[in-house]
Amino acid sequence: MSAPLVGRLAIIGAGLIGSSVARAVREKGLAGTVVVADRDAGVRARVRELGFADEVPETAAEAVADADIVIVCVPVGASGAVAAEIGPALKPGAILSDVGSVKAAVVEQMAPHVPAHAHLVPAHPVAGTEFSGPDAGFASLFENRWCIVTPVADADPAAVERLSVLWSGMGANVETMSPQHHDLVLAITSHLPHLIAYNIVGTAADLEQTLTSEVIKFSAGGFRDFTRIAASDPTMWRDVFLYNREAVLEMLGRFTEDLTALQRAIRYGDGQTLFDHFTRTRAIRRSIIEQGQETAAPDFGRHLVAAKK
Amino acid sequence: MSAPLVGRLAIIGAGLIGSSVARAVREKGLAGTVVVADRDAGVRARVRELGFADEVPETAAEAVADADIVIVCVPVGASGAVAAEIGPALKPGAILSDVGSVKAAVVEQMAPHVPAHAHLVPAHPVAGTEFSGPDAGFASLFENRWCIVTPVADADPAAVERLSVLWSGMGANVETMSPQHHDLVLAITSHLPHLIAYNIVGTAADLEQTLTSEVIKFSAGGFRDFTRIAASDPTMWRDVFLYNREAVLEMLGRFTEDLTALQRAIRYGDGQTLFDHFTRTRAIRRSIIEQGQETAAPDFGRHLVAAKK
Repeated sequence: MSAPLVGRLAIIGAGLIGSSVARAVREKGLAGTVVVADRDAGVRARVRELGFADEVPETAAEAVADADIVIVCVPVGASGAVAAEIGPALKPGAILSDVGSVKAAVVEQMAPHVPAHAHLVPAHPVAGTEFSGPDAGFASLFENRWCIVTPVADADPAAVERLSVLWSGMGANVETMSPQHHDLVLAITSHLPHLIAYNIVGTAADLEQTLTSEVIKFSAGGFRDFTRIAASDPTMWRDVFLYNREAVLEMLGRFTEDLTALQRAIRYGDGQTLFDHFTRTRAIRRSIIEQGQETAAPDFGRHLVAAKK
Repeated sequence: MSAPLVGRLAIIGAGLIGSSVARAVREKGLAGTVVVADRDAGVRARVRELGFADEVPETAAEAVADADIVIVCVPVGASGAVAAEIGPALKPGAILSDVGSVKAAVVEQMAPHVPAHAHLVPAHPVAGTEFSGPDAGFASLFENRWCIVTPVADADPAAVERLSVLWSGMGANVETMSPQHHDLVLAITSHLPHLIAYNIVGTAADLEQTLTSEVIKFSAGGFRDFTRIAASDPTMWRDVFLYNREAVLEMLGRFTEDLTALQRAIRYGDGQTLFDHFTRTRAIRRSIIEQGQETAAPDFGRHLVAAKK
């Protein structure tokens, strides 16, 4: 048997993503030793029970000592504090990475704490569910999903390559781009969709009480699709919006302009504008299916799930 | 064997919904004869090939002659013209129904053409996929989905009951409310979600071309969930917005006010407002799962689908 890719891997933060990384690395035999740290004692106890870590030390600094690769899996707003805590403990040649949904702000927060003898290589696996915590993770979360690696300007190519191979080993398809470009692409593909999903669910919650209960009852008409992503972790998403503010506001501005135009078409009974818009959007859906990012199965077999009940 | 529930059932319009009704009624043996009409000769030929109708006459008027129940399955904007065509041909005691996503406007359009000896009982099965046409239908589409029956003020209780039993027979859970209340509930649960999904997909399509291709590539981060409903039939949805204008504009106004508040919180870095909002929306999701309108499986097993590829 060949030696594992990584001798010692440290994961800081045992939530949905951190615990999934630990499980995937263990299942694929990608690291000799998997060390998991979490600032919450209850979470550490649960990680020990679940058994997906070889070691669960009390502090993040202990976890990263002697680690070859460190992956910080905490909300974006906490990454600066974590970097300050673990930076001094990083060994020469260590790779420090993360999984945050925002990248420029993470670089800004973490870079000052990375010693010259270590390598900062931020990354973002575009995968998740609406569940949180160490119990929510699973080894196949990253299978066939994208992991976007966003090296800083003077990144060491060997370190970037090593981290990319680790993510490939977990089943992800790795893509590389700058932190700034990442933040723009994710603002429209992920951050804005989450914001408007959170928003419409909030609007429904504020209706008269009897109407809200009917919204829940008849949610299968479209609303339901929004509630899944609007159930995602509030802390993580608060930080996404605070730390990718400019790109989100830019995309939100475009969205609102377009919505105002559709609103005007509805008000003035302009059916042609509505029809043309609704026809155009079908092409985007086809492209997504053609690129294998989605199945063409109608409704994801939800009617089948319902029928089996 | 007992006699079927309906002697002769006529379906006008063989799209996704009409062809699904025909298939469900046949599979469950709910009608002695299923007659399907469509104004498009190509669709009629396809219906004959697919074999889910006993008769496929050339005109809607022929189809409804001697029918006990007639279900009009056309875009909302066409229901007045169809009613004008078939009204004079309805036999005494016949029930005229439809499947439109808007109800008050349908009543307004159809009622003037219904003879005194027939019964208008509008209905709306809250089910569908993003596919259209006679090939897209399937018999289990309505299983465990809601069908909202919206009787007019002076409706005949026996006719309402008979139509309700037919929908129950197709597997639907039947609920009754006024056409006006239906339109308000659907504006928030279905029409507004479709409008903002169409809108965000349009915003993405208008980005610089390289960025649009990246949006497609990285759509799994949330955007993808919106593209499914933004691929729905453009004619049907144009009519929904034209004919449920007031309720949609009302709900859209609330949505925009709320979105503006979130936008302001992002601009001014007000993390507490964002966190509180994102926490509140989780409760709605829980209610939907508790009421059996959704499974709790994370991501609908999409990662499993991806892993199997």
